[in-house]
Amino acid sequence: MEITGSHLIAGVESRAGVPTFTSVDPRTKTTGTVRFHDATAAEIDQAAHAAAAAFEITRHYPPGQIAELLDNVAVAIESLGDQLLETADLETGLGIPRLTNERGRTTNQLRAFADLLREGSYVEAIIDTGQPDRQPTPRPDIRRMLLPIGPAAVFAASNFPFAFSVAGGDTASAWAAGCPVILKAHPGHPATSELTARAINRAIEIARFPAGFFSLIQGQGIEVGQMLVEHPSVQAVGFTGSLRAGRAIYETAARRPTPIPVYAEMGSINPLVLLPRALETRAASLADGLVGSVTLGAGQFCTNPGLVIVPNVADTDSFIELVRAKMTERDPGVLLNEHIEAGVKRAVATTTTQRAVEVLTGAGDLDGAAAYCYPNTVLRTTDAAFLADPEALQTEHFGPVTLFVVCDTLETMQQVIRALHGHLTATIHAEEDEAELAGQLYDLLREKAGRLIWNGYPTGVEVVAAMQHGGPYPATTAPATTSVGTTAIKRWLRPVAYQNLPDVLLPEPLQNSNPRGIWRTVDGHLTRDPITR
Amino acid sequence: MEITGSHLIAGVESRAGVPTFTSVDPRTKTTGTVRFHDATAAEIDQAAHAAAAAFEITRHYPPGQIAELLDNVAVAIESLGDQLLETADLETGLGIPRLTNERGRTTNQLRAFADLLREGSYVEAIIDTGQPDRQPTPRPDIRRMLLPIGPAAVFAASNFPFAFSVAGGDTASAWAAGCPVILKAHPGHPATSELTARAINRAIEIARFPAGFFSLIQGQGIEVGQMLVEHPSVQAVGFTGSLRAGRAIYETAARRPTPIPVYAEMGSINPLVLLPRALETRAASLADGLVGSVTLGAGQFCTNPGLVIVPNVADTDSFIELVRAKMTERDPGVLLNEHIEAGVKRAVATTTTQRAVEVLTGAGDLDGAAAYCYPNTVLRTTDAAFLADPEALQTEHFGPVTLFVVCDTLETMQQVIRALHGHLTATIHAEEDEAELAGQLYDLLREKAGRLIWNGYPTGVEVVAAMQHGGPYPATTAPATTSVGTTAIKRWLRPVAYQNLPDVLLPEPLQNSNPRGIWRTVDGHLTRDPITR
Repeated sequence: MEITGSHLIAGVESRAGVPTFTSVDPRTKTTGTVRFHDATAAEIDQAAHAAAAAFEITRHYPPGQIAELLDNVAVAIESLGDQLLETADLETGLGIPRLTNERGRTTNQLRAFADLLREGSYVEAIIDTGQPDRQPTPRPDIRRMLLPIGPAAVFAASNFPFAFSVAGGDTASAWAAGCPVILKAHPGHPATSELTARAINRAIEIARFPAGFFSLIQGQGIEVGQMLVEHPSVQAVGFTGSLRAGRAIYETAARRPTPIPVYAEMGSINPLVLLPRALETRAASLADGLVGSVTLGAGQFCTNPGLVIVPNVADTDSFIELVRAKMTERDPGVLLNEHIEAGVKRAVATTTTQRAVEVLTGAGDLDGAAAYCYPNTVLRTTDAAFLADPEALQTEHFGPVTLFVVCDTLETMQQVIRALHGHLTATIHAEEDEAELAGQLYDLLREKAGRLIWNGYPTGVEVVAAMQHGGPYPATTAPATTSVGTTAIKRWLRPVAYQNLPDVLLPEPLQNSNPRGIWRTVDGHLTRDPITR
Repeated sequence: MEITGSHLIAGVESRAGVPTFTSVDPRTKTTGTVRFHDATAAEIDQAAHAAAAAFEITRHYPPGQIAELLDNVAVAIESLGDQLLETADLETGLGIPRLTNERGRTTNQLRAFADLLREGSYVEAIIDTGQPDRQPTPRPDIRRMLLPIGPAAVFAASNFPFAFSVAGGDTASAWAAGCPVILKAHPGHPATSELTARAINRAIEIARFPAGFFSLIQGQGIEVGQMLVEHPSVQAVGFTGSLRAGRAIYETAARRPTPIPVYAEMGSINPLVLLPRALETRAASLADGLVGSVTLGAGQFCTNPGLVIVPNVADTDSFIELVRAKMTERDPGVLLNEHIEAGVKRAVATTTTQRAVEVLTGAGDLDGAAAYCYPNTVLRTTDAAFLADPEALQTEHFGPVTLFVVCDTLETMQQVIRALHGHLTATIHAEEDEAELAGQLYDLLREKAGRLIWNGYPTGVEVVAAMQHGGPYPATTAPATTSVGTTAIKRWLRPVAYQNLPDVLLPEPLQNSNPRGIWRTVDGHLTRDPITR
C-alpha cells in the first residue's frame, strides 16, 4: 500500500498545509522521503463537520452494527501484514517482536469492545416503573440509559504506534460508544498512522459507515491539536502523552465557550515499595525484575517504575549495587525520537541538580551514537531530600531511569508515600509475613494510584474489564476514568432519562420486552427479564 | 435551638470574619437580627484540614456505618420540627406546604443513599481472575472497585433551602461515597443553613464520626467559594446555581496546580415542544399545565419551562392567548431575594431588546411591592428571530417567565431544536397519532437534554435511581453525571484496580468469599456467588 503523506479526511486525501515533516529512523537518524503536512484550519474544520454529520447517523446504529465494524477494522489491520510492522519498526525502532505483540493487543482490544457491544449491558439501563395511583401525585415512569456523547478528538501517543494510536484503545472505545473519531496522529510515526488509517477506511467502506466516522489528521506542532480541541463540533478529547501537552489541551478545552471533558493520560513514575524481608529473601530476582521493567522498551512506558522506595536495612546497599551493575551491563535501547532523547537528558539533568541526588550509573551523554538513545540510569537519594522537595523528585524522566529513595525509618517511608502525587500504579514487594505492614502501606498508596500491584511490576498492562489505567493528577486529568479495558467506553457516554414515553418511542434497551436481553436494574432489582404489565 | 451566626467548622463555632450579613424576609424586605460572617481564609483552611483528617478515617468505614449516619441525619433534621420550616419560610418565602414537601424529599434522599450503601453493589466490582498457566506469560488477577475521591466542597442553592442545600443531594451523595463535605451555605438562607448544620453535627456526634466529616461555612461574595475551591485538600466540587457563578468555579478548579472535577448544575430553560394535534385536542389543559409549571415556586426552578416551541397552526394564537390570560390572572409569587428580582428584571429586559420579541404580559416593574416579586411574564417570538440569534433567546430568566417560539413549518421547528444548547430537560406534548413525528423530534432533543418527557411538565423531579438531572453545557459542566438520584454517588468515586493481591489484603467487595453478597462481574459474568478455587 502506498504512503502519500496525506491526511485522510472522511476517507478523502488532503495535504494542503505547510510546514511539512518526515519520518525519522531512530536507529540511524535518517529521514524518510515522504513529506507529511501540518493540517490547516480548513482541513480540521472539514474533518469535524464530517464527524458531526456522521454522528447524526451512527448515533442510531445498534451496537451489533458497530461491533461488526470493530471486527472488520481488526481484520483490515491484520491484512496490512508485514508492511505495517516494518513501517512502524522503521519509524519507532521498537523492534518486530514487540510490535507484533502490540498489534495483537490492538486487534484484541477492538474485538473486546465488539464483544461488549454484542452483550449490550454497558448502557447501564435503569428503569423505575410508574405508580399511577401514588398519592398525592402519580409517580412517573423513568428509564435511563447511556447514549454517545458526540464526535471525539483523539491524540495518539509516540510510544505505542498501534495500541495507543490510530486504532488504539481511545479510538476503539469512542467508536464502540457510537462516537466518530478525529485522530490527531503522532508526528513520530506518520507513515504507520497513514497505513492504519487506510485500513480503517477500507473497513468503514465495507461496513457502509458514513466516511466521517473516522478522519486522520497529521501535524507536528501544538497548534493543530489546539485548533481541533477548540472546534465546536468536538464533544470530548482522549489524549496520551506528556504532562505539558496534556495540561495545555485540558486548559484549551476548559476555556471553550462550551467546555468539554478531556481524558488525558500523562505523567507517572509508578512507585515501587520494597519491604525488608523481600529484600532479604530474593534480592537477585527483585533486581532482575526491576531492571527488566525499567529498561523494557528503553523505559518508554507510562508504567515505567521510575521511583523505588526502599528501607535502609542491611541488604539495601548490596541490592542497589546489584541493580546498578545490571543496569550498567545492559546496552541502552533505542529511543523513539530526538524529542524523547532531549527530554530524558533535560529531565535527568534537572533531577541531578538537586542536592543529595547521587548518580550511580548513567546520566551522561551518549554523543556520537548512531541511534537516539540514553544510558541506563540509576539515581539515589534520601528520605530527607525527597521530603524536602517531593515535587522535584517526582519528575518523570521518560526513559531507562529509576531513582532510589532510601528511607531510614518506617515513619519516613510512610511520609514519602504520603508526599507522592498521583501515579498510574503503585507496587509493593513483600513476603507473606510482611502482609500486615503491606496492608497499611496499600491504604496510603490507594489514594495515589489507579492500580495497586503485589509482588509484580507495573509494565505490561493486562487488557481486561477490571483493568484501571488512570490515576490522580498528574497521572491523568480524569481519575474517575480509564483508558485501558472495556470500561474505557464510559468516557464517551452520557445518561439520558426518559419520562413516561410510550414503549414504541423508547430506545430498545429501555423497552418493556427487553429485546436485547440485557441486564437492567428494574425497580431496584438487577434482571434480564422483560417488564410485564 | 439558638442561631448564633457562626460557621460550624468540624463542629466548632467560629465567626471571625468581616463583612457580615443578615437574613432578609423576602415578603417584607426586613432584615433579621442575627449577623452572619464571611468565612476567612484561616477558617476555610481549618475546615479543609479537618475534612482531610476525617477522610483518613472515614474512607475505611464500611458502607453500613455511613448508612447509619445518613439515617441519623434524616432523623435529626426531622427533630428540628417546625423551627426549621418556619426559619426557612421566613428566609425564602417559599411557604410551609412546599417546604414541608421539600424536607420530606431531603430526608428521603438521605435514606435512599443509606439503602444504596446497605445493598452495596454501587462499588461496581469487576474481577478478572488470574490465569497462572497462560502462555507466554501468566495472566494476573485484576480486581477493580470504586473508592471515595476525597473531601468535597459543596455549594448550596438559593431555591431549595433543604433539598439542594446543607443536607441536600450533593452532600448526601458525597457522604455516601465516604467523602467529608465542606458546605458553602447560600447567603439567602443562612439561619436555615445553621439550623440544619447543627442537626447534622448532633448526628455526627452520636454516630461518633470524626467532626471534620462536615463543616458549614457562610459567605456572601464569590471570594469565600473561590478560596474553598482553591484549597489543595478539596478533591471535588458540587455546585447548584447560576451559570456565571458555576462557570467561575469551574475555571478556578481548572487553573489549580492539581485540577479537580466540578459538578455544576447551572442554567436551563427546558424547552417544551407542542405538536398540532395536542394543541387542537386539549388546549385548555395544556395551558393550565404550562402556567402551573411556569409559575410554580414563582418560576424559581432549574426545570422551569422557559421556552415553548409551537407550530403556527389554526389553534396557536388562541392557545397563546389562553396562556397569556391565565398568567396575567395569577398573582405574582414571592421571589427569594433581591438578587433574584434584579436578575429576572435584567434578563427579561435584555431579551426584550431583541427585535421580534413581543411582550404579551408582564415584563414590567412591580415597584412599591412589599415583597420581592416579578410579574408573570409571557413573551413571543418567531422561528426566524430565534434562528437569527439562538443564544440570546435561550437566556435563562429564572422567574415566572416563558417565551413562545412560533414556527411556521416543521422544518423551522426542527432547526430551532437543532439550535438549542444544553438543557436539563426537553418535553414533547403530542397525541398518540403524532408519535412518529414526536419520535423524530426526540431523536434531535436527546442530544440537547438529560431528561426527555412525554406529555408532562419538567418541574417536579422524581427522586429515583433512574433519574437523570443533568445535561449538556450550559445546563451542567459534567453531562455524564447527575445531581439527583442515587447514581449521583458516582461523582465522588474513582476506580482502583488491585493486581495479584492476597485475598486478605483486598477490600471486602473484592474478596473471594464476597462477604457483602454484592453483585460483581466475575470473568465477564454478573453474579453474587463467591469465587471458589
